[in-house]
Amino acid sequence: MTRDELIHQIKIKRSFLCVGLDTDINQIPMHLLDHEDPVFEFNRQIIEATADLCVAYKPNIAFYESMGAAGWESLRKTWRILPKDCLSIADAKRGDIGNTSRMYATAFFDEQRSGLGFDAITVAPYMGHDSVQPFLQFQGKWTIVLALTSNTGSLDFQTFANTEGVRLFEQVIQKTNTWGNPSNLMYVVGATRGQAFESVRKHAPDHFLLVPGIGAQGGSLQEVCKYGMTADCGLLVNATRSIIYASNGTDFAERARQEASALQREMERELAAKGIV
Amino acid sequence: MTRDELIHQIKIKRSFLCVGLDTDINQIPMHLLDHEDPVFEFNRQIIEATADLCVAYKPNIAFYESMGAAGWESLRKTWRILPKDCLSIADAKRGDIGNTSRMYATAFFDEQRSGLGFDAITVAPYMGHDSVQPFLQFQGKWTIVLALTSNTGSLDFQTFANTEGVRLFEQVIQKTNTWGNPSNLMYVVGATRGQAFESVRKHAPDHFLLVPGIGAQGGSLQEVCKYGMTADCGLLVNATRSIIYASNGTDFAERARQEASALQREMERELAAKGIV
Repeated sequence: MTRDELIHQIKIKRSFLCVGLDTDINQIPMHLLDHEDPVFEFNRQIIEATADLCVAYKPNIAFYESMGAAGWESLRKTWRILPKDCLSIADAKRGDIGNTSRMYATAFFDEQRSGLGFDAITVAPYMGHDSVQPFLQFQGKWTIVLALTSNTGSLDFQTFANTEGVRLFEQVIQKTNTWGNPSNLMYVVGATRGQAFESVRKHAPDHFLLVPGIGAQGGSLQEVCKYGMTADCGLLVNATRSIIYASNGTDFAERARQEASALQREMERELAAKGIV
Repeated sequence: MTRDELIHQIKIKRSFLCVGLDTDINQIPMHLLDHEDPVFEFNRQIIEATADLCVAYKPNIAFYESMGAAGWESLRKTWRILPKDCLSIADAKRGDIGNTSRMYATAFFDEQRSGLGFDAITVAPYMGHDSVQPFLQFQGKWTIVLALTSNTGSLDFQTFANTEGVRLFEQVIQKTNTWGNPSNLMYVVGATRGQAFESVRKHAPDHFLLVPGIGAQGGSLQEVCKYGMTADCGLLVNATRSIIYASNGTDFAERARQEASALQREMERELAAKGIV
């Protein structure tokens, strides 16, 4: 999915919601456990219930990997049913030396080889340019680099500052900026970071930001929009637990839709206020 | 495998060699492609040929993941035949927010759930304490944190220095040090980093270091030992391509053994010079 297509989807759906598919077999409704592949069945119903309300889906790979080869198969089946009008993001946070990052890129981008052909992948920047560039080299795909994450541990290293007061996450944005462009590179910036969005926008005025931390983690959508929204929207705001685990009864998909719908309406107001829709 | 057991193995094998199993189906000898699972068969023969010469094996997960569920199955079969007197390291470079890192730890440590029960995993520190601690919480397992890696990109962020001249990799060691101890925590330090080992040892005098970058990447074993070896050895030096791809003919396992043996003899000399054996 190109940048123009993504912006188009945001405008027609009046939403910049990304739904996280962090599907834990121990948290899904009991009645699904009778299915041959309960994780896939859960995802299928969540996707069906939310597809018109969001512009992206983001399975976190850890949840699938924790079930070994069977989990990988649930992931493949899930990827295959993701709607083509939604950006598919492998939340994998990978990164390794060059020839190895190329293998990770193959794992998530090259359907012929791995069975998976995601549009985008999250990448950890710690190992530097040769760990990030192999992802950027895949034509028509997106690399989403961790900048300032939503968790408490983000303050351990990401805000480490040099003599000029440049913090590590700013250095990450400045450097990676020169390796990609706003059409193939995004950044992860946590919704819990409020005013740090101003600094992010100084260094990355046009890039899309993938924003976790709304909902269960306590970030504010209004604050994210105030400091992070651009004329093209420039935001994909993710919610996971507040949507997919809104209920663990037989009404889970319906309740997920209600939660997604509430967020979509809030997003529509923000888009309208900025004159984007 | 405990720290004492690891040190014991180093002394009886007179080796601190770790063999990397970065098995790429496009690089293994052609004659193996007739096997039902060529990647596993390659690993099986490499392991059989080198088990008495090394103290650890380290499959890099990217190479298995790039083949989807089938690759995950090759990894599981490989893990099952790793000798019990060798440390098994999942080179995965994972790291995510707390509940997600716990899933990754489950994926590689919890055999009952995922089919894999590695002794150790490599972890990327960028996301801070709650991304690293879930791995450390697994009893009897090792967490190996990236500090200063062997690739050229390591200089992009890992040597970023604060106002006191502390570089990011030193900050990573200082902080993670307080989350684990020399019996459950190691660091990755590239063999190509020479004198930086002195600084690493200042902050982590007793921790084992996992050292990639010997062989194909050009690091020097003598230099690593000069600056990094402790009274307990304190080093696991990895070689991958120089061993497993020493030949791509039918003699590949024999040639792998020759390369591993040459490194083992060099390591024995270093251990003897320090009075460890």
